[in-house]
Amino acid sequence: MILEIINKKRLGQELSYEELDTIFNGYLKGNVPDYQMSSFLMAICINGMTDKEIFGLTKIFIDSGDVLDFSDIPGIKVDKHSTGGIGDKTTLVIAPIVASLGIPVIKMSGRGLGYTGGTIDKLESIPGYRVDLTDEEISRQVKNINIVITGQTGSLVPMDKVIYALRDVTATVSSIPLIASSIMSKKIASGADKILIDIKVGNGALLQTKEEAEKLSELMIKIGEEYKREVRTIISDMNIPLGKCVGNSLEVLEAIDVLRGVEKDNNFVNLCYELATEMVSMGLSLSKEKAYMMVKNSIEDGSAYQKFLELVKTQNGNIEGIKVSEKTYDLCAQSSGTLKAINALEVGKLSLSLGAGKENIDDTIDYTVGVKLNKLVGDSVEKGEVLATLYVNKDVSNISINDIFMID
Amino acid sequence: MILEIINKKRLGQELSYEELDTIFNGYLKGNVPDYQMSSFLMAICINGMTDKEIFGLTKIFIDSGDVLDFSDIPGIKVDKHSTGGIGDKTTLVIAPIVASLGIPVIKMSGRGLGYTGGTIDKLESIPGYRVDLTDEEISRQVKNINIVITGQTGSLVPMDKVIYALRDVTATVSSIPLIASSIMSKKIASGADKILIDIKVGNGALLQTKEEAEKLSELMIKIGEEYKREVRTIISDMNIPLGKCVGNSLEVLEAIDVLRGVEKDNNFVNLCYELATEMVSMGLSLSKEKAYMMVKNSIEDGSAYQKFLELVKTQNGNIEGIKVSEKTYDLCAQSSGTLKAINALEVGKLSLSLGAGKENIDDTIDYTVGVKLNKLVGDSVEKGEVLATLYVNKDVSNISINDIFMID
Repeated sequence: MILEIINKKRLGQELSYEELDTIFNGYLKGNVPDYQMSSFLMAICINGMTDKEIFGLTKIFIDSGDVLDFSDIPGIKVDKHSTGGIGDKTTLVIAPIVASLGIPVIKMSGRGLGYTGGTIDKLESIPGYRVDLTDEEISRQVKNINIVITGQTGSLVPMDKVIYALRDVTATVSSIPLIASSIMSKKIASGADKILIDIKVGNGALLQTKEEAEKLSELMIKIGEEYKREVRTIISDMNIPLGKCVGNSLEVLEAIDVLRGVEKDNNFVNLCYELATEMVSMGLSLSKEKAYMMVKNSIEDGSAYQKFLELVKTQNGNIEGIKVSEKTYDLCAQSSGTLKAINALEVGKLSLSLGAGKENIDDTIDYTVGVKLNKLVGDSVEKGEVLATLYVNKDVSNISINDIFMID
Repeated sequence: MILEIINKKRLGQELSYEELDTIFNGYLKGNVPDYQMSSFLMAICINGMTDKEIFGLTKIFIDSGDVLDFSDIPGIKVDKHSTGGIGDKTTLVIAPIVASLGIPVIKMSGRGLGYTGGTIDKLESIPGYRVDLTDEEISRQVKNINIVITGQTGSLVPMDKVIYALRDVTATVSSIPLIASSIMSKKIASGADKILIDIKVGNGALLQTKEEAEKLSELMIKIGEEYKREVRTIISDMNIPLGKCVGNSLEVLEAIDVLRGVEKDNNFVNLCYELATEMVSMGLSLSKEKAYMMVKNSIEDGSAYQKFLELVKTQNGNIEGIKVSEKTYDLCAQSSGTLKAINALEVGKLSLSLGAGKENIDDTIDYTVGVKLNKLVGDSVEKGEVLATLYVNKDVSNISINDIFMID
């Protein structure tokens, strides 16, 4: 039976809901071995899935675990998801902005496996910050201060956990249908009314081409329609890192600078404005122009930053305690000219090598290390000028800055 | 590194010899887990392989084990391989024919996993027949009587064993490049000078279409050219069983009837003539017309049968001891008309259910059971006439003869 299902997908045929259910739930229950699931996932990767299959798969994913219900909390709950990039700390900025404007934010974020930490890892670089709130605590807190950022509660989409772990080690991550089902099932199961997806494209992202990003976008919007959830998407560049900092504490400090209005007008700040504007537009059903003005105001009048401080305090965090390593190492320009490119993937690898991310699931993250860019794309640089400062806790040598920076 | 290799094949890119070597030998050594190999094999199944990759893979397979050398035995050693079918006992007939005509036959056959036994299983239904000859015994015997049929000696292509076992449980059997590498590596490693391949097509075979068979044929001939081995192929039908008998003892007895000239002119006998003619033509470098006459004579003058008796005796077998079960069960026609079709796959399943084959590797084969057809395709039948007799050792019931026989 399982072999017949795999074989159908090998031949590019459409599977029924029952067939998908049989193999996926068989795997979750331990009745289908890894080696069968991985050959099946590869067949999906190459031969794709029909919309009907993808809707079925999303349902199977959602039904595999708990489905949260925040309907007792007034207001439209807008959730946001990023497909992941280097230096992506947007949640830390936009969640407080949106919450400060009266839209309830219940954000359940994940940990990272790869080049940098996930949002939860970043928040853990704030000493004391709790990421393990219970359902009750979440409800109470969002009613009190309109914002929660915590780890997943209960058992949301356990199917995704086991399937993702297998995809990660079998070169079957890059499948548009599997990415769409994975993301959408988690967003729907976590009780969002509306969903904003930031799809990253570029060398530092899962997707490498605009075409793939557009396909993914289209698919997620369709899945949203099936579940009566408004879905909007933004396709954003991930060939250069977002903002100046990559690494957990460094990124939190950078997010604070943006919220305080100290940091302005770079690719990270601009993306925060764009995403926050969409979320406000969705949450309050406003035009983007109006939403944009409100977002701008929330930074300028300090209310977004106050909301962030309130969030951290309520979740027991001590913002004064954020630490970066005192040991630094400068990367200097070897020639003069204009900084044409900063390779996101290489910065990600560098940050990972410093200890800011996990290469393996058992690694521990060093919150105090990372990369701070002193020059951004478009800046002119002099030979010998500091391009970036590394915050390190081990000996650094042999970094080929030519892989990272292109000066011309 | 392994993930990059899998990923390249996922994207349909050509892999280098070194990359193929890394992943296949990594798997053989236990460093690459099943789930990675199976996702890689599925990518090969769907995206195929270039000729260069297939030649490389064949070399990797051959190099994984021993390579036999029978160059001290005079004459051109012609080996024959069948991709497998229901009631395929051709080796038992054609090896004695060819050997009786002066061509040395060193046949190392396999056991079956599936609907019926392999050649070795069939020979083991002859009490005492030894299938475990040593290399020395093989050399001595072929010099003495010009024929050996035994199991594999040494460690021929261990890579094929592990890869085939994984393909079997991951729906990745039906890959023309993998089939070609698997068969050709074994034939080349077992020291054949020339190789004849009987490619079966139909519901009882691995390949379902003539196009696939032609692709496989072309590929095996090309691999042969790489290794300076003449390869000829025959594409033969496997929608109906070969001959009258399916089951180990029954098939040996049927082969004897053909060698004795008692059984004539059915699809099995005709295929034996065709294959033996090719082998004689290859082994003695003769035209097919001349080869055919020699084959015919070897049956008519009894020399082929004598050679068979000599073979069995030399390998300790007692031909008088072959047993079929005394318990039988007749399948009778439910209507009158012409027998239009006998479904090979269904006959195979029936034979397997009686115990003539192994469903799992740990099953034991019952040599005495099987199916004997009393009517062949084209025969006219009366309602109530016996279409087939089952030789059984357990209770038989609920056999839907409509799945097997089509009368119109």
